[in-house]
Parts: sequence; C-alpha cells; structure tokens
Amino acid sequence: MSSNGKSKKRCVVLLSGGLDSATVLYFAKRNGFSPVCLIFDYGQKHRREIESAKSLARAAGCPYKLVKISLPWQGSSLLDRKIKVPAVSTGISKGSGRIPSTYVPARNTIFLSFAVSFAEAILARAIFIGANAVDYSNYPDCRPEFYRAFEKVIARGTKAGVEKRKIRVLTPLINLTKARIIKLGVRLGVPYELTWSCYKGQSKPCGKCESCFYRAKGFRQAAIADPALRAR
Amino acid sequence: MSSNGKSKKRCVVLLSGGLDSATVLYFAKRNGFSPVCLIFDYGQKHRREIESAKSLARAAGCPYKLVKISLPWQGSSLLDRKIKVPAVSTGISKGSGRIPSTYVPARNTIFLSFAVSFAEAILARAIFIGANAVDYSNYPDCRPEFYRAFEKVIARGTKAGVEKRKIRVLTPLINLTKARIIKLGVRLGVPYELTWSCYKGQSKPCGKCESCFYRAKGFRQAAIADPALRAR
Repeated sequence: MSSNGKSKKRCVVLLSGGLDSATVLYFAKRNGFSPVCLIFDYGQKHRREIESAKSLARAAGCPYKLVKISLPWQGSSLLDRKIKVPAVSTGISKGSGRIPSTYVPARNTIFLSFAVSFAEAILARAIFIGANAVDYSNYPDCRPEFYRAFEKVIARGTKAGVEKRKIRVLTPLINLTKARIIKLGVRLGVPYELTWSCYKGQSKPCGKCESCFYRAKGFRQAAIADPALRAR
Repeated sequence: MSSNGKSKKRCVVLLSGGLDSATVLYFAKRNGFSPVCLIFDYGQKHRREIESAKSLARAAGCPYKLVKISLPWQGSSLLDRKIKVPAVSTGISKGSGRIPSTYVPARNTIFLSFAVSFAEAILARAIFIGANAVDYSNYPDCRPEFYRAFEKVIARGTKAGVEKRKIRVLTPLINLTKARIIKLGVRLGVPYELTWSCYKGQSKPCGKCESCFYRAKGFRQAAIADPALRAR
C-alpha cells in the first residue's frame, strides 16, 4: 500500500472505555483502518473509565493520546461532586424525551473538535465515535443530525475541508440496539471484560445508574453474560 | 429588568487579548450584554496575549474564565517550537488563498465548543467572537460560512438547542477592514494600549509577522497612532 493509501486509512477513534467505543475501535480495525485513539480526562467522576480506555487501546494494539481538559463550570452530575448521579428510575428519560442530569454541556462537540484538530495534524480522513441513539439517554449530541451538522463545520472551518480532503465523522453504531452492538462486538473479538460503563467512581459498577442499566439490558437481550462481571 | 431578561443578555466573549476580540468585548457591552470572557491558554508561543486578555477583561469590568488546554500534536508554527513563525512576506496569503503555517488545526472549533459548553452552563444566549474575514490570514475558521455551520451544531447537539433556547454565534467584525474595526473600537473606548497582536513570544512586537502586519496596516489606514507602541 502506498503511503498515500496508508494515510487515507488512518483514523481517529474517540475511546471512552465503555462498551460502544470499544466496539467501534474493533470495527474500525476490521474495516482496514489504522486507528489512533483519543482518550479524554475531563474531570469525570468515573475516572476509572480512563484506565479501561488505555487497556483497550493496548489490547487492540493501537496508539493513543490522552487529552486532559478541565471544564471550569458546573451543572452536570457527571462532573459536579455536589450533584448525585441519578439512579435509573429518576434519571431515565427514554420515551420521556427528558435529558438527565448526567448530560455534560456540549461534551461531544468538545471531543469532536479535538478529534478534528488531531485528524488534521496526522492527516487522518475519518473520525469514529461510538454514539448511539437507540439505547441511550436522549443526549442531543448522540443523534445523527448532530454528526451531519458537525461534518459541515469540518468542511467549512478546517484547512482539510477547504482543500477538499474530506474528514468524515463515522458513527457505525448509531442505529443499533445495545444488544446488537454487543453481538457485533463479540464477533469482532472485543474484550468486553476490559470495558467500564458505570457513571459512579467506585471500584465496582453500581448497577443502578443509567449507564449500568443499558449495559445490563444489552447483555440480557443479547443472551450473553457480561464478562466484566465475571472478571471482578 | 427581570432575571429572565438578564440571563437573555448574558453572553460569552472569546477574548484572545488582540485587537479584534477587545473590540468585540466593548461592542457587546455597548449593546447591552453582560459579557463573561473566556481566555485560552493553549500553548501558544505568544503567551503574552493571555496577560493582555486578563487586563482587558478587568478594564472592561467583566469576569473571565481561563481555560487551559493542551494540543498534544504538532504542525503549527504558533505552537511548535521547531517551526519558525513566518515573516509577512513568506507567510502572507491574502489574495493567494494560501493558509500560512500559523494555522492551528480546528482552533476556533475547539474554542467555540468550550464557549458553547460554558454558555449552556451559565444560560447565556450569545457567544461573541472577533473573527474577521477581510484583513486576515485565510484561516477557514474565520469565515462566515463556518460560523453559520457551527450554529447548526449548537441547535442540534445541545440541550439548549433541542429545548429551543437558541445560542447565537455573533461575529460583528467579520466583514470590516482592520481600519474600520479600530475606528469602531476608538469610539467604544477600547484601551488598545492593553492589547497584544504579535505571534512571537517576545517582550516587544516583532513588527514582521502577519499579525503585526495587519495591525500596523489597520492603524495606518485609520490614521490613528497605535497606543500600544506609545505605551512601550
């Protein structure tokens, strides 16, 4: 493969350490991409996921960059020590359309903006993100229309864009149920025992937050045992 | 004014410490907004501008937040110690359409994404940025089409957007020459002696980089002496 061909297949994968981003990482690899992972330390209570993300990158044999950012404003229960991460019964919003307190203002916009900067710097032509708009918490920045809008920002606001070297934002899981994501991941050989989903910063998953709820539901519906529970 | 009215007029101003953002800050105040400034430490060689930004916020009587980010990738002469900031004759791109090495990949996308997050957190309905697409360096993220695309990202990817509390991105200087910006700023009482434009991290402006070039051209065409030169 020519060096041009190689750089065409280079991609940035946003890796949180959870189920979805782990699956996307292996999906990108299986589809011939050479991923470089971007991991964010943004002051999340569940910092535990950062270690999971690093382990996943290593397991996949992919390099990663850790980006540390601080959001010096409050208001999300994922960041703010004064606001409790809600249990699923109070936080849940599926159907209701309500956005729970775990919403971090413009989080995926921030993550994507760094990913675009990184993609330009390393000449990657694609950014993968494990966004999902089926078994999710109504976060607006997980919906397809957000990603289409963001691709226009890239086209109009970057050197790559004006020079017609398109950088795509790929969201292969966006319309899948959690169960289908897990089945896909199992086929791809994703080491789910390394992933971390729980929003709380404890040593074991709480089993009560929205993220634990969707994970458990996914494994149950896929009729697969969660290997992270066995591993602990 | 009701508290609702007040929060409607709250705004975020992206403040770099240069001419344009200083003018925008005073413009926002004059138009009845209560600005909160956002200042970025992003590893720029001309860190001197951060102190200017703080002084400007204080002079305008406005609070500010300093956001420290690191871009752990290279390629811009504004960040990379191994790449020299070009002199205007080699770096200049006006007319040529070329984007000089001072371009920082997706910089304004990153800045705006933090501004949106901040705006959501403090319930501000407007973000001001001193972008200019006339006397500028062909940076794609200074052009009107980028800002219109970014407004769509806000509308589709934030809680404020889906709940129809529109956050606007305002670029009042985008079509003005540097001379007209300066004349406007003088009328608004902008303390230009506090501003810093030079891309080099020295104690005095180099007078040779593209940013110094446009500043000098602006004051010359406005037939106004640059007070920053007198102050030193």
